[in-house]
Amino acid sequence: MKFEKTPINTLKRGAKKASYDKEIVYRILDASEICHIAFVHNGKPFVQPINFGRCKNKIYLHGSHKNRMTQALVDANEVCLNVTLLDAMKLTRSAFHHSVNYRSAMVFGTVKDIISNEEKLNGLKCIINHFIPNRWEHCRVPNESELHATRVLEIDIQTASAKIADTPPTDNKTDLSLDYWAGTIPVKTICEYPKPDAFMDKNTEIPKHILEFYTSRKG
Amino acid sequence: MKFEKTPINTLKRGAKKASYDKEIVYRILDASEICHIAFVHNGKPFVQPINFGRCKNKIYLHGSHKNRMTQALVDANEVCLNVTLLDAMKLTRSAFHHSVNYRSAMVFGTVKDIISNEEKLNGLKCIINHFIPNRWEHCRVPNESELHATRVLEIDIQTASAKIADTPPTDNKTDLSLDYWAGTIPVKTICEYPKPDAFMDKNTEIPKHILEFYTSRKG
Repeated sequence: MKFEKTPINTLKRGAKKASYDKEIVYRILDASEICHIAFVHNGKPFVQPINFGRCKNKIYLHGSHKNRMTQALVDANEVCLNVTLLDAMKLTRSAFHHSVNYRSAMVFGTVKDIISNEEKLNGLKCIINHFIPNRWEHCRVPNESELHATRVLEIDIQTASAKIADTPPTDNKTDLSLDYWAGTIPVKTICEYPKPDAFMDKNTEIPKHILEFYTSRKG
Repeated sequence: MKFEKTPINTLKRGAKKASYDKEIVYRILDASEICHIAFVHNGKPFVQPINFGRCKNKIYLHGSHKNRMTQALVDANEVCLNVTLLDAMKLTRSAFHHSVNYRSAMVFGTVKDIISNEEKLNGLKCIINHFIPNRWEHCRVPNESELHATRVLEIDIQTASAKIADTPPTDNKTDLSLDYWAGTIPVKTICEYPKPDAFMDKNTEIPKHILEFYTSRKG
């Protein structure tokens, strides 16, 4: 299944690196805890990082009711967000061809301000389980006053694209004989072993859902 | 030295996590190869990742002359950009208090489209040496036609802020007795050992500037 190619999501430069495959976009989104969101406030563009959750073709955000970004998104009724994962630094003999390998997902969606507690809980469950799979079953779910204090936005992905660079460094042929080092420095974002907080009994075993998450991210 | 607090960069939520110290903002910027930039195109906000360099109070970007983002920034003559580094995932007994430790820098600046080759070279040197310290001395500098093909933007940082969360997870007192695991999962972005490209002589030693960079980032 692919996202529709429209003028808004069609890559013009680096088109060979583009993918409109839904599963590829979803996989990039799911590999990140944070996305970056653009919004307009007082006529100026801002960018801000935020936690999120992705379930099927929807993305959930949450924040304070006073947050200027969530208000701007509700007012605009649409959003552009990006997740970029850096995979390698590529060093070439020429300054000009230095670059990076990466996976980037650009998402364009409509924004719905969720009102009902039932839908809010569904959105927050998505965010928590995106953070750590199955975590929702292993923590206290939000109560009435917490739900009241939280604004939850539901983004319906209208279209999206992925851009993936995963090639070796590329020098001009005429530069290959130059006596400079060229190559790749792989980059990884990894998790270290989970540390219980100060109130946990020291003998408590780390639960399975956390160990599984750690194993999938330890690198 | 601190950045001036103005309505645009003053943190309203999480003000205890805020810093306006220039060195703290610079250190966050310098720890990342990529920033995220907001811009407006056809009346809509977009966010895009891009490589950059930071030297003193200036940030340099480069791209194709046809790039819609660089054109939008030149037209607007101002920019908002963000760098966020994820340091830990914090799991609490309540879903509500799950959060992350991070370092985030928000930068607001004016934009100058650099025309002269001398200034372009200066900007590109900043980008390359931000990528890998001292790399500029160890690669072929751009020639006339490469300079011609590249647009270089100079951002003068007008104001900025850092937001740093580096605390343990925080549950409500009434939740501390709940039988759920709470704690921290540290997150690190690390470099792996540099790999020469296919055209390098296998016996070539990895140069000092690359080993030093690798050592500083291997985690």
